[in-house]
Amino acid sequence: MKIEIWSDVACPWCYIGKRRFEAALSAFPHKDAVEVVWRSYQLDPTLPEHYDGTELEYLSTRKGMAPQQVSQMFDHVAQQARGEGLNYRFDSVVVANSFTAHRLIHLAAAHGKQDAAKERLLSDHFEHGRDIGSREYLASLGRGLGIDAGEVDELFTTDKYADDVRFDFEEGRSLGISGVPFFVIDRKFGLSGAQPTETFTAALNQAWQDANPLVLVNSGEGDACGPDGCSV
Amino acid sequence: MKIEIWSDVACPWCYIGKRRFEAALSAFPHKDAVEVVWRSYQLDPTLPEHYDGTELEYLSTRKGMAPQQVSQMFDHVAQQARGEGLNYRFDSVVVANSFTAHRLIHLAAAHGKQDAAKERLLSDHFEHGRDIGSREYLASLGRGLGIDAGEVDELFTTDKYADDVRFDFEEGRSLGISGVPFFVIDRKFGLSGAQPTETFTAALNQAWQDANPLVLVNSGEGDACGPDGCSV
Repeated sequence: MKIEIWSDVACPWCYIGKRRFEAALSAFPHKDAVEVVWRSYQLDPTLPEHYDGTELEYLSTRKGMAPQQVSQMFDHVAQQARGEGLNYRFDSVVVANSFTAHRLIHLAAAHGKQDAAKERLLSDHFEHGRDIGSREYLASLGRGLGIDAGEVDELFTTDKYADDVRFDFEEGRSLGISGVPFFVIDRKFGLSGAQPTETFTAALNQAWQDANPLVLVNSGEGDACGPDGCSV
Repeated sequence: MKIEIWSDVACPWCYIGKRRFEAALSAFPHKDAVEVVWRSYQLDPTLPEHYDGTELEYLSTRKGMAPQQVSQMFDHVAQQARGEGLNYRFDSVVVANSFTAHRLIHLAAAHGKQDAAKERLLSDHFEHGRDIGSREYLASLGRGLGIDAGEVDELFTTDKYADDVRFDFEEGRSLGISGVPFFVIDRKFGLSGAQPTETFTAALNQAWQDANPLVLVNSGEGDACGPDGCSV
């Protein structure tokens, strides 16, 4: 079973959704048969590589929201994040374009480290105030993942993986995805947003039954008992 | 996904539309699953095999347009063509009936060379002042495509492929097509004219989603982020 997750680094619900999905996956009996692939999506491709301002300033300027409203939104999202064991610190978030980070996620995938890269980026962005657009940060992230420094350097000196990131954007568009996180199972089932863990569980079960249906060998109903009682 | 394109050789917007469509197709993530078929259409079936006059004379006579008006139209179309990297030379265009050229496009299709034939005909007609109705030209085109000279010759000694061309005319009429280029996707979606590339992209995505819909397993909206911000 292949699960593709369109997601941005700079997306607070994406990290929360990742935790809820992981909770469902870890309890899923067929989890060893599940392949997870992170696909790139950008909420704001127009962001400069470095934005001189806080996340609050960015959102209130760009979305035309009152600072107080943004602040309330932060409180609500941070509370939801805490419920998943995540310690969001919106005051420290460094607003940065995530394009190069997405390229690094693709590079990490080539080393079998995609989920680790995605996890670190989300944590460092929302919990540790790291600048996910900076060369220094991405180099240290690459080192931490055991990726050769020269390969991370190539992200800054060449266009490597840029087409892969853009391909993800296009493919997301072709599937009708207009917000993230968005989970696609076997290119057949779609699940939008940071749903509760039970919803992910239901989706995993539905997709599994769809791909591996039991053939019922009895034609008629046999005498049986259920939650509502026994047949007579 | 099957895309049928009704188109004439003697149709300036058809070549421009071909380029815009190709740009969208080349960026389409599922392009390998797309089959393109060129279908025949004639803007003016009454044209003699050879018309002794310029394109400007032909259009002003036939359409009753002032030569200056035709000239302005040429300038406008040539400018749009330049935007797609095409070098239209209306002064050199040889006015000719495209019926036999359409039969050659069908012959080329039987050799897996349909798009190459269509491309060459459009380029030779609008950019290189070739007479697309002449036996010599079509023979050389066939040679260039690696088609046996005898088979091209048959277009002039028999009626081969004439019924196929007429079938395209009739089928276009039955679909309500009254102008070209006209793009039909999976016999379900229609797109008229040399639309901007973005419109072709949107049409490809819409048709893909229609043929391969994701089953949304969540009934309610999950918390998500989109271009306009995050839900709270």
